[in-house]
Amino acid sequence: MFPTIIEDGKGESRDAVLILDQTLLPAKAIQARLVTLEDAAHAIRSMQVRGAPLIGVTAAYGVALGLREVADDATLERIVATLGATRPTAVNLHWALERMQRVLHPLQIEKRRTAAWAEARAIAAEDAAANAAIGTHGLPLLADIATHRDVVNVMTHCNAGWLATVEHGTALAPIYAAHAAGITVHVWVSETRPRNQGLLTAWELGQGGVHHTLIADNAAGLLMMQGKVDLVIVGADRIAANGDTANKIGTYLKALAARAHGVPFYVAAPRSTIDFTCPDGAAIPIEERAAAEFGPMIQSETPVVNPAFDVTPAELISGIITESGVFSPNELRRAKLAR
Amino acid sequence: MFPTIIEDGKGESRDAVLILDQTLLPAKAIQARLVTLEDAAHAIRSMQVRGAPLIGVTAAYGVALGLREVADDATLERIVATLGATRPTAVNLHWALERMQRVLHPLQIEKRRTAAWAEARAIAAEDAAANAAIGTHGLPLLADIATHRDVVNVMTHCNAGWLATVEHGTALAPIYAAHAAGITVHVWVSETRPRNQGLLTAWELGQGGVHHTLIADNAAGLLMMQGKVDLVIVGADRIAANGDTANKIGTYLKALAARAHGVPFYVAAPRSTIDFTCPDGAAIPIEERAAAEFGPMIQSETPVVNPAFDVTPAELISGIITESGVFSPNELRRAKLAR
Repeated sequence: MFPTIIEDGKGESRDAVLILDQTLLPAKAIQARLVTLEDAAHAIRSMQVRGAPLIGVTAAYGVALGLREVADDATLERIVATLGATRPTAVNLHWALERMQRVLHPLQIEKRRTAAWAEARAIAAEDAAANAAIGTHGLPLLADIATHRDVVNVMTHCNAGWLATVEHGTALAPIYAAHAAGITVHVWVSETRPRNQGLLTAWELGQGGVHHTLIADNAAGLLMMQGKVDLVIVGADRIAANGDTANKIGTYLKALAARAHGVPFYVAAPRSTIDFTCPDGAAIPIEERAAAEFGPMIQSETPVVNPAFDVTPAELISGIITESGVFSPNELRRAKLAR
Repeated sequence: MFPTIIEDGKGESRDAVLILDQTLLPAKAIQARLVTLEDAAHAIRSMQVRGAPLIGVTAAYGVALGLREVADDATLERIVATLGATRPTAVNLHWALERMQRVLHPLQIEKRRTAAWAEARAIAAEDAAANAAIGTHGLPLLADIATHRDVVNVMTHCNAGWLATVEHGTALAPIYAAHAAGITVHVWVSETRPRNQGLLTAWELGQGGVHHTLIADNAAGLLMMQGKVDLVIVGADRIAANGDTANKIGTYLKALAARAHGVPFYVAAPRSTIDFTCPDGAAIPIEERAAAEFGPMIQSETPVVNPAFDVTPAELISGIITESGVFSPNELRRAKLAR
């Protein structure tokens, strides 16, 4: 299987990035070649790449692609502005762009291109490592349930697997870790309308040999009421300093149902997803996307509102699984200090 | 526009029923002609007709169609069994079939056919009248909100409009009544995966000139958090004696979100939807439907679970709007006594 993102070429000859075009999955696994800044911006905007961590990495490589010609400070700022405008909610995008700027800005202009490739590569490698650590830290949550259940039933939402990252995934990392440790896991995969990212999750779990069942988003409440869910793990697009978490639209409804039935509800995300400048969920901008995402059945005269994210209040979150350990939402500041 | 169900022919020459084939809506409004018992069973099973009240009326006419040949008691029982097996959750189906049996069984065999048409027609007329009364009883809920809001924002789920009934609808009846009374109503219409009955609701509200916006089912929580919902009204497929209510899958998640944000949550249904023999929600059978309802994008090897209904506990329900008035869930027995 193709990786979600990989450099095309080696050493000084590298001049492009190959991505797995996720708009064609699961029907077709086809790579797209990003050569220009606009290719990278388009890939993020059109969701050829998606998932907060992968968006961040793609943006970092997008800066490198934009520096193809020797670029002055104004050009660097234009590159960052173009990429920064692609998706408003995922904080990893802005985190990655700020990091690229911080590294590149002090350098001589002719040294920026090589440094940009190196820094993007470092961000990608750190993402893979962080997600592996998320898997390690999340594994005990499933192992505990496995001590008294033959099958650990986990519910997730959207796709926060390896497709949403460079490797391993965030919400799915503990699931893959448990599967690798010989724990029998079954995953309830929500369709995730309107973009159907649940189909990506079903596909990648199938590739990994993990038992799963696709459900309509609407079915989450009934399944929890029936006692068929032991644990919910979702990803995050931005976590506010107080623990309020923006994630794919519909996450909040699952959190409410989990609370109603005493099901633990965990968020899994690298620390780069935590926005300490954002005090709470009300300060997180919610991206509004096009009606066309609902599909061709929608009559053109039908008014549609399509918010891409919602906010789950911190009090509904049992814990946040990061590469530095599992934190309760009200001790996020400690995550900031953790190495 | 075609009615949802109407007799084809008049007097003794009537021998068929015309239905609006809802599997083709909103793209095409085409009638289907039901001539045989199997036509009626197929129409219910395949959801050419849908909505608990309309299913009941169609089943009643299905008995009349099945009595085309003079039928002995065993035949009548076979007819009722065939129709009763089409959909397990909607109680109106069984209510209508029991009523037909109660009326027909004591009659001489040769008189049953004419009596069956008459009784089915009575059930249809009573449905229309009950729904008109539901509109009248529900109207004050919207009128109260209109005293302090320029627009009354109502959220509904699935389709419980005139398409789900003989006329007026159940959940939408108070909305149509408010619209007719000059109140500005805006309806949040949930897509209602996997069958997308929200598209039917959007279509029928559009036909009636009622403002509405289509949303993904996943967006309900965010909209309530944002204070954009004043009232939720949904239909019901079966209401247990304690007020627990089975309705289209996803209703329960809306009820949880409504409770979290202090939004009143009402169920609108004729009294025939109340199953006094069913003590509580746990006793309501939940229909499991085919994976094919998710659409062609689902890969055939993907395991799917597709429950068609969920149960909203009585404690989340502000009131049940019936043709006899609005009852709190714990005073449903009073609804039984009301005329």
